[in-house]
Amino acid sequence: MELITTIRNVPDFPKKGIVFRDITTLLKNKEAFHRFIELMVERYKNERIDKVVGIESRGFIGGAALAYVLSAGFVPIRKPGKLPADKIRQEYQLEYGTDAIEIHRDAIGKGERVLLHDDLLATGGTILAACKLVEQLGGTIVGLSFLIELSFLQPRKRLSQYDIFSLISYDSE
Amino acid sequence: MELITTIRNVPDFPKKGIVFRDITTLLKNKEAFHRFIELMVERYKNERIDKVVGIESRGFIGGAALAYVLSAGFVPIRKPGKLPADKIRQEYQLEYGTDAIEIHRDAIGKGERVLLHDDLLATGGTILAACKLVEQLGGTIVGLSFLIELSFLQPRKRLSQYDIFSLISYDSE
Repeated sequence: MELITTIRNVPDFPKKGIVFRDITTLLKNKEAFHRFIELMVERYKNERIDKVVGIESRGFIGGAALAYVLSAGFVPIRKPGKLPADKIRQEYQLEYGTDAIEIHRDAIGKGERVLLHDDLLATGGTILAACKLVEQLGGTIVGLSFLIELSFLQPRKRLSQYDIFSLISYDSE
Repeated sequence: MELITTIRNVPDFPKKGIVFRDITTLLKNKEAFHRFIELMVERYKNERIDKVVGIESRGFIGGAALAYVLSAGFVPIRKPGKLPADKIRQEYQLEYGTDAIEIHRDAIGKGERVLLHDDLLATGGTILAACKLVEQLGGTIVGLSFLIELSFLQPRKRLSQYDIFSLISYDSE
């Protein structure tokens, strides 16, 4: 099962010139979805993960399945205004303007071993902001995991202090 | 493990007079999260589920873990504009105005056995729209599953043709 063959390439989405890597065709394929989670579990099963953090909203999919299989808790990092209780926020740069993400203050305890997950690693801005949130709460970041990495955007340059694992890599647009 | 004791009640969120049932305190608790998924799996493990459909975005969490354990594919139903390929849409009524959800046209094949999942069953408007999407694609709905049901809103009245399973029920606000 070559996972990359189950990704759908959608030209000009969400805008002209971008090839969108659509993971829904992987997720709906039960063998591919199973393989995706198994490969992640294989990598982290001996790491004593306490919490898997998933980034809204596609990061919830792999993150939740991983948390279950690793017998960890699951923590969502969300867009502003979605989390109801006491929380902290991190802003990050977009191509034009800024965006922000939030996490509940009680989501992670000091010294807990945390695995972060998102579907896509592009420029790395979102995951870097997520790492700052986890570290602000005292969590120890064991790794950053992604289904897809757009390696031609060179996201690892700004994430050099972290262990990064991705299953599918694209080295050109 | 009484799951209901792990839910956080947040008064006046998202607006005055509403008690928000915050599931993040359940999800981050590894025993509670595990129990949540196990109870769901116990109910559906002999139902030969082909696809688990999760409703954006908290429905992705339980839905994805369920799909993995049931060896099914996972299908997201999303807010408008998020899915990149050919899709169908269903509108539904809100208290004021309307909202809509979408599914990829190729997400479900004719005759496939489908389990729908969302975190919360309130008035039932969203899940009813989701059922219409699945049925329009020819899927057979095996069941509707929820972590929480607000039974005082009587959602089962309008969903009487479906099998409904929820783990936590609130019979008053």
